[in-house]
Amino acid sequence: MRAPLVALPPGAVTDPDVLAAHSKDHASTCPAGEALCLVRPRSTEEVSAVLAFAHEHRIPVVPQGARTGLSGAANAIDGAILLSLERMTAILDLDEENQTATVEPGVINADFSRAVAGRGLFYPPDPSSWEMSTLGGNVATNAGGLCCVKYGVTADWVRGLEVVLADGRVLRTGRSTAKGVAGYDLTRLFVGSEGTLGVVTKIVTALRPAVEAPRTAIAFFGDLDSACATVTDVMTGGLRPSLLELIDPVGLAEVSRERDYGFPPGTNTVLIAQSDAEDTVLEGFTTAAARHGGEALIADGPEEGKLFLAARRSVGLVLEKRGAMLSDDVCVPRTRLRELVAGVGEIGRRQGVCIACTGHAGDGNMHPTIVFDAADPDETRRANEAFGDVMALGLELGGTITGEHGVGLLKRDWLERELGPVGVDVHRSLKSAFDPRSIMNPGKVLA
Amino acid sequence: MRAPLVALPPGAVTDPDVLAAHSKDHASTCPAGEALCLVRPRSTEEVSAVLAFAHEHRIPVVPQGARTGLSGAANAIDGAILLSLERMTAILDLDEENQTATVEPGVINADFSRAVAGRGLFYPPDPSSWEMSTLGGNVATNAGGLCCVKYGVTADWVRGLEVVLADGRVLRTGRSTAKGVAGYDLTRLFVGSEGTLGVVTKIVTALRPAVEAPRTAIAFFGDLDSACATVTDVMTGGLRPSLLELIDPVGLAEVSRERDYGFPPGTNTVLIAQSDAEDTVLEGFTTAAARHGGEALIADGPEEGKLFLAARRSVGLVLEKRGAMLSDDVCVPRTRLRELVAGVGEIGRRQGVCIACTGHAGDGNMHPTIVFDAADPDETRRANEAFGDVMALGLELGGTITGEHGVGLLKRDWLERELGPVGVDVHRSLKSAFDPRSIMNPGKVLA
Repeated sequence: MRAPLVALPPGAVTDPDVLAAHSKDHASTCPAGEALCLVRPRSTEEVSAVLAFAHEHRIPVVPQGARTGLSGAANAIDGAILLSLERMTAILDLDEENQTATVEPGVINADFSRAVAGRGLFYPPDPSSWEMSTLGGNVATNAGGLCCVKYGVTADWVRGLEVVLADGRVLRTGRSTAKGVAGYDLTRLFVGSEGTLGVVTKIVTALRPAVEAPRTAIAFFGDLDSACATVTDVMTGGLRPSLLELIDPVGLAEVSRERDYGFPPGTNTVLIAQSDAEDTVLEGFTTAAARHGGEALIADGPEEGKLFLAARRSVGLVLEKRGAMLSDDVCVPRTRLRELVAGVGEIGRRQGVCIACTGHAGDGNMHPTIVFDAADPDETRRANEAFGDVMALGLELGGTITGEHGVGLLKRDWLERELGPVGVDVHRSLKSAFDPRSIMNPGKVLA
Repeated sequence: MRAPLVALPPGAVTDPDVLAAHSKDHASTCPAGEALCLVRPRSTEEVSAVLAFAHEHRIPVVPQGARTGLSGAANAIDGAILLSLERMTAILDLDEENQTATVEPGVINADFSRAVAGRGLFYPPDPSSWEMSTLGGNVATNAGGLCCVKYGVTADWVRGLEVVLADGRVLRTGRSTAKGVAGYDLTRLFVGSEGTLGVVTKIVTALRPAVEAPRTAIAFFGDLDSACATVTDVMTGGLRPSLLELIDPVGLAEVSRERDYGFPPGTNTVLIAQSDAEDTVLEGFTTAAARHGGEALIADGPEEGKLFLAARRSVGLVLEKRGAMLSDDVCVPRTRLRELVAGVGEIGRRQGVCIACTGHAGDGNMHPTIVFDAADPDETRRANEAFGDVMALGLELGGTITGEHGVGLLKRDWLERELGPVGVDVHRSLKSAFDPRSIMNPGKVLA
């Protein structure tokens, strides 16, 4: 830890062990610096005081939620104040009639979702980290999840924010009404800005009435093409599944090594669909799968439904045991899904690394995950090359380098390629307009 | 017309009659200046050349679509270049499988909606002006419409944009994929910015599968409170009507003076609902209405359905015959709807002006419309006071001064009240970041 040059903000923790424990998110390959201190404010006023202090002394600030992000956006920066929102955990308002809630950023997604469900309502955004991640972190990264395919991403559920600006001033954005066009859409600008423009201290979310417990179906295919054609049929046919996931041949082989899921012989690609409405989505799914030579089953209850999803959920855990992981997050137009998954397979073969390609097929948003031995420099180099190859492929197919994980440190250099020079210039102008001293999570998203 | 101090851009029209014909939008009470010239570019390159020219010579530019806006945002400014996008009318791509389209900004909403319907798809945003207004104008104002209550506003259907910046550089924002979090959400920043940040030259929209032709129901109430309680029941009950409109006692009296709609005796408030799905929405609507003492009918076909909507659609036309109009557009949390409509009635009585309050009840977005004799200075003063009183009431009820019409010139001073001083500062910083010479529609939205 560098010696502080100025008096620290009140309550600042400088214990090296505490700082080390707060220095990284879940992007295992991203570097982290040595922070100056950790502060855990309990109110907007305290956040404002910390930022005013940091602004005055030009000290970088790294906002943190539960540090479950996958791009290094919450990683410590040398000499920075780590500003954890974990103590701001109040659900300030839960309005059943207007179907809105106002929450502090440290509320855990699962706690909120359960509180809302207790009132007969539903908050859809469900990132895989939902049992740990905070709503503030979800907002900062515009988190997605499994049910995006029907309900959209975090941004679609945020109506307004309270944000502490870099200099400590408090801004309110948006509204609590269903519609509103008064001024620029500042709310959306902060959502997904990864702590580079300000610190979110209150969130107004929209809610919707509770839905049925989902029903689940699974379809087994002998080849990738048939599975991808089924996805296109389902989505263009107007069906609205609440989940539509794909496990590619590599991912399937990996999970099958750990456990026999009893898949029919010859299965090399699997689709799992859910529907949470009293409708004909799953019947449409099984019909589409059969049309493309797949064999599909509808679960006869929630327990069997969980079993159908088990292989998909186990992919990450199985891969984690095998070595270091680089998790990609490209999203392509849905019709390019086959080319993406097949192309990822080729990249894996060419680079000689294992890449499992599972993900949210209904959105065209896949998570090609590269597993490698971090102790082997040559394999590490090939893994990193493969990581870039996957993003290049995504861009080539008309897609984006990140569908839901964000840019952080992990994809910062790639962002410039996606945005192009004018886009980068505009991003820099915007950043300067909000944060002229560049203290807000500097070096994240933009170099 | 002022004499041009510099050579005009190629193809510039300076005919005073043409300029006068292009000097105003539909906000009848907003002032318009005298433009320098009108240009009607046919390509992004031509738009870029005009803006580079304007930027060099510090000439203001007013982007225009079909000038059907209701806030004066497209009104001429003294010495400005009117930049009409009416010649950029190509539907560049209509992708049935990915359910997206790429269009130029001058495409008329209705032309696009019909082209899309011809492919079995649906583009929901349906502002009342849809037969005339352009998609570029819809994007610039983030236009709403009748079906927002189910499908959201224009912004919810825009995935990416091509924008010519104030200095002529061409920026691409967003994506053509279902999800994406690469960088700041510039797309949403431009949507609804009323031509103050740049000129939109291409729009990537999302589409969805076609829906059923809507069925219609109507409900008659003896008092406003019962109608508003019905709206709350419908919306909180999880029903998803594709239209839910209210006609208040004043509006109902006005339209009934022109024509006998055969409403039951004692009716003073009417709700109209539609549903475009094979569901139980209309049955739920009639049940909710009956619970609150209303009398409800489901149309037995499309013709009767049109009849049920006829009174709602005629309000504007009937009022137009009576004098000048000031159309408000406040949006409040749905549970405050009764207070808004009742409060507007009180404002009308207090100021001695007629204010009909119809609108999109399901969204809490109403259009209190003040009718007055513009030749009577005292009545004009009272009408303007009432206009402000309505916005003050909307803000007091936790709402916004504009749900879908925008700020333009009409509500510029009120915007500052809604945003507060920090919000105004941030708006100004953003404006400067994009348009340092303040040539993009200066004086609109922000003073």
